[in-house]
Amino acid sequence: MVTDNQALGLIFSRRSIRNFTTEEVSAAEIQALLEAGMAAPSARDRRPWEFVVVTDAGIREQLAQTHQFSGVARKAPLVIVVCGHQEVAPHWVQDCSAATENILLAAVGLGLGAVWVGVHPAIVRENHIRQILGLPVGVRPLCLIPIGHPDEEKQARTRFEAAHVHYERFGQQEPPGAD
Amino acid sequence: MVTDNQALGLIFSRRSIRNFTTEEVSAAEIQALLEAGMAAPSARDRRPWEFVVVTDAGIREQLAQTHQFSGVARKAPLVIVVCGHQEVAPHWVQDCSAATENILLAAVGLGLGAVWVGVHPAIVRENHIRQILGLPVGVRPLCLIPIGHPDEEKQARTRFEAAHVHYERFGQQEPPGAD
Repeated sequence: MVTDNQALGLIFSRRSIRNFTTEEVSAAEIQALLEAGMAAPSARDRRPWEFVVVTDAGIREQLAQTHQFSGVARKAPLVIVVCGHQEVAPHWVQDCSAATENILLAAVGLGLGAVWVGVHPAIVRENHIRQILGLPVGVRPLCLIPIGHPDEEKQARTRFEAAHVHYERFGQQEPPGAD
Repeated sequence: MVTDNQALGLIFSRRSIRNFTTEEVSAAEIQALLEAGMAAPSARDRRPWEFVVVTDAGIREQLAQTHQFSGVARKAPLVIVVCGHQEVAPHWVQDCSAATENILLAAVGLGLGAVWVGVHPAIVRENHIRQILGLPVGVRPLCLIPIGHPDEEKQARTRFEAAHVHYERFGQQEPPGAD
């Protein structure tokens, strides 16, 4: 694992954080997180994303009830809900996923912790979020990102597995020239 | 834009690079890129990703013919094709998109340049890649990532737009407490 490259540290340090202190996330930090999200690549520059910034405890409680893994929305002081316009871009899931990953990485850079809580593609879950946030038709919720100051520590790591690497064609698992 | 936080520099410095020098990408750099990809979050830790590392000029030429924006695969010395197992995870697009964004950001950290060339969800394009790389049924190509040493410079930036930010509910575009 390449930990000696400081620039890559952000990537390997990102872990799913589900326990937070009571400290709030500042307006400046929220701004930085959103700027990071909107620095993501977007095919043909369509930018099919919308970000709903939720701090209200009552709304977070409703978000927490989406499914069995969404309870963390209750514990984090901030939840960013990443949504996409499917009419604007058939690749809204890709663009919004890249934006989500940028927000998760920016959280690390800001000393915060966060976790990706999936919503799409389960329609019943999407509709639950749609009702809570008043999403218009065509705007679909991809995920929730609960964010706060971390109250747990996890080590940096990759999950590199050589079995998932192929060379030139699928199934060739030795690099060219390897004997 | 938060440029004074060095840790976030990677995110804002990532730009689509489509012109490269003739210098090859080293084996160590390829390893770092793959480790970064596999450090991405994956719902329920399914890791539904496969990475095909293509350096062969003939195969890159075929990849370049996928659609009108894929010609860059011809110019870059390395193309990583990110694929996903749809049977392994209904959220394979999300996980593989996060892995793709990590690879793009790692490229920046390594002094390389890269660009996300979409394939999914156009089935005719997916089938083109499937034939070239011999992808088995169920393994779907998400995108191509042409990578090399950059032969162009682009400034860091966000594309932050306040119009894409909502507070507590969709359509409320002033933060709580703002008067």
